[in-house]
Amino acid sequence: MQDSYLFATIAQKVSAYSAAHPDKEIIKMGIGDVTIPLCKAVVEAGVKAVKEMGEKETFRGYGPYEGYDFLTGAIRNYYKKNGVELDISEIFVSDGAKSDVANILDIFGQDNVVLVPDPVYPVYLDTNVMLGREVKFIDSNKSNGFLPLPDGKVKADIIYLCSPNNPTGAVYNKEQLKCWVDYALKNDAVILFDAAYEFYVTDKTLPRSIFEIEGAKKCAIEFCSLSKTAGFTGTRCGYTVIPKALKNLNAMWLRRQSTKFNGVSYVVQRMAEAVFSEKGQEQIKTNVDVYMKNAKHISGVLNSLGIWHTGGVNSPYIWLSCGEMKSWDFFDKLLEQANVVGTPGAGFGKNGEGFFRLTAFNNYENTCKAMQRIEKLFK
Amino acid sequence: MQDSYLFATIAQKVSAYSAAHPDKEIIKMGIGDVTIPLCKAVVEAGVKAVKEMGEKETFRGYGPYEGYDFLTGAIRNYYKKNGVELDISEIFVSDGAKSDVANILDIFGQDNVVLVPDPVYPVYLDTNVMLGREVKFIDSNKSNGFLPLPDGKVKADIIYLCSPNNPTGAVYNKEQLKCWVDYALKNDAVILFDAAYEFYVTDKTLPRSIFEIEGAKKCAIEFCSLSKTAGFTGTRCGYTVIPKALKNLNAMWLRRQSTKFNGVSYVVQRMAEAVFSEKGQEQIKTNVDVYMKNAKHISGVLNSLGIWHTGGVNSPYIWLSCGEMKSWDFFDKLLEQANVVGTPGAGFGKNGEGFFRLTAFNNYENTCKAMQRIEKLFK
Repeated sequence: MQDSYLFATIAQKVSAYSAAHPDKEIIKMGIGDVTIPLCKAVVEAGVKAVKEMGEKETFRGYGPYEGYDFLTGAIRNYYKKNGVELDISEIFVSDGAKSDVANILDIFGQDNVVLVPDPVYPVYLDTNVMLGREVKFIDSNKSNGFLPLPDGKVKADIIYLCSPNNPTGAVYNKEQLKCWVDYALKNDAVILFDAAYEFYVTDKTLPRSIFEIEGAKKCAIEFCSLSKTAGFTGTRCGYTVIPKALKNLNAMWLRRQSTKFNGVSYVVQRMAEAVFSEKGQEQIKTNVDVYMKNAKHISGVLNSLGIWHTGGVNSPYIWLSCGEMKSWDFFDKLLEQANVVGTPGAGFGKNGEGFFRLTAFNNYENTCKAMQRIEKLFK
Repeated sequence: MQDSYLFATIAQKVSAYSAAHPDKEIIKMGIGDVTIPLCKAVVEAGVKAVKEMGEKETFRGYGPYEGYDFLTGAIRNYYKKNGVELDISEIFVSDGAKSDVANILDIFGQDNVVLVPDPVYPVYLDTNVMLGREVKFIDSNKSNGFLPLPDGKVKADIIYLCSPNNPTGAVYNKEQLKCWVDYALKNDAVILFDAAYEFYVTDKTLPRSIFEIEGAKKCAIEFCSLSKTAGFTGTRCGYTVIPKALKNLNAMWLRRQSTKFNGVSYVVQRMAEAVFSEKGQEQIKTNVDVYMKNAKHISGVLNSLGIWHTGGVNSPYIWLSCGEMKSWDFFDKLLEQANVVGTPGAGFGKNGEGFFRLTAFNNYENTCKAMQRIEKLFK
């Protein structure tokens, strides 16, 4: 495991360059943080909830460990609209998908073998390394379009999948996900499915939840987040779905959460509820459309330059080939010659070497400016 | 480990009694949840922060894993007023002391031996049992006033202390805490000090932080919470102090938090900051005074009945002897004959048998009514 988190290293490099060249205007398309403020429906709900906490009649103390019914109910209805039927007791509200993805390991045995795609979101790997658990890698690369499928000869107990993928932006279709579900069922394995970017899927034939796949309720846990969907990176709210049909993991997670967690702030849960309201859904769609317009623009420029990439459609991430260059050299070139910050693919694993991630979370003006500079550099 | 959390069992018993006797007015003095709404300064800060999140200029995405400087700075100043000097990098903001007390175990080796007082807050024990770690108990009982001191013959690596104590309300003085610090330094052990009730200490000779004791920065981690201090049980904010002088635990905790956690909601951190403002401190003091008036009243009635107890001064908890009765029989008697709900001491460990916990968190009117009924029952 690396001593420092990938994004901390990038921040240091950018600071150093910036200090040496104070006149340069740096455009950040690196870390996956959103920039558009919370939508009106969410702000109104938040103000109302804070005021309720100041009045005797509406004050709330400890809430349910798994989240208030008003929120788990809203999430259930959201899944229903996408064709997935859940019981509210299968939904657990948390302070974010990152916490749940990390803490879920508390309910798995130490001898379980873990399968992680490479490249990968560092948290999947680091949390297992911290526990000293055996990790196997599966190659995600240009030849499989960064959408690896199971290898029947490799045995694993816990499988991490993320679709739309971070960092590659690639999205599994239903047939591909079905291969993973079948593999998990055959091997008595559990899929940890990270659906944090599901809201970016616009192609209606692509799955937004693993539970759209037959059999998944017997082998999958799904993590989701409002961070990229509704701009909640600083507000902190996510949810995890553990079907009751999945061994005894639902009960074990409730025991874990009730012992080690005391639920999410009432105010934040009311803000999250507003995301799922009719107005909230319209408003966040407007915001996500801005990011998708950026993604489309980035992808378009790369196409015009003949640069191979995945993502940019159904995803806020664009994963591009560095050609003959190494990831960190490409990072330095972009920083120094175009004053654009991205993320070197090598930071996500060995198969990330020679690739680079750009994100669509800056504003449209900056995104266009950055792509103009990149166009000039590579034309 | 018990299958269900103590307070879930109590809730079931109360529901069953209530369903069978719908005409009875039950007064709850069991679970330690607050009842007074958030103070004005906190509500104003919360409304302001939510609105900031809706404006482009003031919107915040991911915050620092360890908390914003405005909050860690306010906490540092709070400690300074109590005579303890800290660096802000020694303070970590979290969603509550319960999460930190549980998650801190991630940075300790599996073979560390744990020392836990009996009776004890169940989370200390359950989290270690879940990890399969060896736990030794130290007797906390009537003969030591529920303030056990170290036994030089017993070796341990991790020691849990809570003062003012939950469930007994007993408070260590400086000389007693010094014995524990000396023991920890001698045995190269770490004290996990739960100071969640420090704000209830009014006797100025008693320590509110273990860092008031010489040498503690080399052997102690302190957990604190705004739950009981400022009514944050449903708002969720706490903090943990890990001195830089304490082995490499400060750096390890930062690595743990940055990998498994993404910080506390900006809105909640602004609300927490307001707790430490001048107005906030005045307002929460007014609220805590209400609880302390209740505690004093409970203690006074018990004194007049000649019932032995600890707490009730410098603590919102009152821990009373059940005389010849067992804890759960006493619970049933109080529920059925006085319609008052408390917590059976046996739920906190074997030395809790024969004792019972009452809390001061109901309103004054209900507290007086409950104590009248208890007086009638035991006179």
